[in-house]
Amino acid sequence: MAMSDSTADVTALIEEPLLAAVATLDGTAPLLAGMVRYHLGYADRDLRPTTPQGQGKRMRPAVALLAAGAAGGDPRLAAPAAAAIELLHNFTLIHDDIQDESSTRRHRPTVWSLWGIGQAINAGDALFAAAHLPLYRLPAAGVSADLALQLLDAFDRMTIAIVAGQTLDLGFETYADVTPADYLAMIAGKTAAIVRYAAWAGALLGGATSEAAERWAAFGEALGLGFQIRDDLLGIWGDAAETGKAPADDIRRRKQSLPILLLRERLSPAGRDELRQIYAAAEVDAAGVARVLELLSREGIREAVEREVARYHVLAAAALAEAARPGPNPDREQLQALVERLSSRVG
Amino acid sequence: MAMSDSTADVTALIEEPLLAAVATLDGTAPLLAGMVRYHLGYADRDLRPTTPQGQGKRMRPAVALLAAGAAGGDPRLAAPAAAAIELLHNFTLIHDDIQDESSTRRHRPTVWSLWGIGQAINAGDALFAAAHLPLYRLPAAGVSADLALQLLDAFDRMTIAIVAGQTLDLGFETYADVTPADYLAMIAGKTAAIVRYAAWAGALLGGATSEAAERWAAFGEALGLGFQIRDDLLGIWGDAAETGKAPADDIRRRKQSLPILLLRERLSPAGRDELRQIYAAAEVDAAGVARVLELLSREGIREAVEREVARYHVLAAAALAEAARPGPNPDREQLQALVERLSSRVG
Repeated sequence: MAMSDSTADVTALIEEPLLAAVATLDGTAPLLAGMVRYHLGYADRDLRPTTPQGQGKRMRPAVALLAAGAAGGDPRLAAPAAAAIELLHNFTLIHDDIQDESSTRRHRPTVWSLWGIGQAINAGDALFAAAHLPLYRLPAAGVSADLALQLLDAFDRMTIAIVAGQTLDLGFETYADVTPADYLAMIAGKTAAIVRYAAWAGALLGGATSEAAERWAAFGEALGLGFQIRDDLLGIWGDAAETGKAPADDIRRRKQSLPILLLRERLSPAGRDELRQIYAAAEVDAAGVARVLELLSREGIREAVEREVARYHVLAAAALAEAARPGPNPDREQLQALVERLSSRVG
Repeated sequence: MAMSDSTADVTALIEEPLLAAVATLDGTAPLLAGMVRYHLGYADRDLRPTTPQGQGKRMRPAVALLAAGAAGGDPRLAAPAAAAIELLHNFTLIHDDIQDESSTRRHRPTVWSLWGIGQAINAGDALFAAAHLPLYRLPAAGVSADLALQLLDAFDRMTIAIVAGQTLDLGFETYADVTPADYLAMIAGKTAAIVRYAAWAGALLGGATSEAAERWAAFGEALGLGFQIRDDLLGIWGDAAETGKAPADDIRRRKQSLPILLLRERLSPAGRDELRQIYAAAEVDAAGVARVLELLSREGIREAVEREVARYHVLAAAALAEAARPGPNPDREQLQALVERLSSRVG
């Protein structure tokens, strides 16, 4: 998804703190910083600097920066936290790619597929450590040390929620009776916790009270849940050219994503048996994929999932209206536009 | 190595902050906290609580606690930092065991060998996040928020040094011309950085000036380097019953440890060729192990490595005498005893 120019502008604020944190990885092992710069799109696979590429949507830092603005402060105040959030997100991607055995990400080979599992674990670990560093610089930018420590404590607790979600997700692969409720608990950690944190931390840095920041957290959570469910939709019905993944990739890889869980709920016992048989193989073959697509279509699952996405985006928009300062506010308007774009994105 | 009762006493101070940090992992994914409790020796492989077992030497937290005492403060002041250090160390062990494909640690199956690589990555990631939490509680214990932030910043930079060392170490496996100097750079990160940090942070929390804390850092670094070189010695000549590893395990696994690097330096070109041929296999067979042991013996390598261990322990003892407050000081005496024990340990 191409971001509007104005959003591209706001995420440019993270460049300096993000690159400063990455530079702390330079040292005795050049491969370490090299892998991280490659993953972040600043280097090619020979570790040579390159025009930034494959940097992703930067949706999470945009939420933090715009929340600071919409809460009444300057987005700049949230730049160190927004950089920390983007670094943390990328650490989780490096480790996720190992866990999911994904060979490409953003149209480029993944770190583990180039340098092996052991070194990719190192790249993620070092990036997670480095993700903390911009937050330690907050007091130098005028933030009280107490607020910095509060944001840091929540940063690591949010990471624990992400990892717990990932632990559930990996467990789902070997567990046939995952329910939509299990799934919601999983994505609340794996995907929504960081968007929730971004909105909450951004608002606090923009001067929101603790109470107002909780409304911002609710906004971020709804946005994150809607984002993930849209992702599940694209994992089955997305256009490969837009998503960078093979068509119906989530069926082939037997992901327990929301469409499949809703399908299983709606099927007769005989239909559930058939689905179980298709999913018994390590990888679903072309005929199996076609049959699952047919069942999803017959049961109207795509429409049901689209309704869920719409529901979370209505929730997010309502939470935003409640959280942000009233009156004209360009940052709130950008967040509203972000909510709209995320609910209709195709890649 | 059994610790003396008094050292066992001092590390008991970390129990409360350590367990409180682990409890933050309880939540939607019981496996997550379960794996961490298993690794730390508080649960069995069925995730049932058990009498603590296989908890290791706790040498790193002991250094932090005793440094606080020997610097003139109460060891209690360093308990949160000492707990953070022990948690961090255990996160690195969980990931190291994946990277080294080690199936046992402290006489028990490793996390990845029981729950797979993906979940073991999660256990390590969550433990690393949780390791920060005791440090965020320092201000509640009377430490200034500024000192807490300084200790935190150094905590993540130290972690980056550890991971850089691990990155070098994994790189050594596919690199035939590692020198003793490369090796020192590697262990300065992988092993010594955390002992250096423990001594430095403990001293600061015990009231040391920044200048005195640097002397403590030098003590920790020398202790850590000597510790690792002794470990390399035990990896070849250690008693399996004491170390929990197979005899000459580091030769079989082709570790580029100091004895092998010194041997390569001393051998004639023909001898180096022979060594290269033995090390060309993925795993060295029994005849190869016997031949390498013979070469090590012929070249007097064991004695050379023992001299290196002794040299670092003399350095550590001298740095300790310079760093600690003069006069009778039971914590300094315990640290001296620790240095003595570590330089002669057999497991």
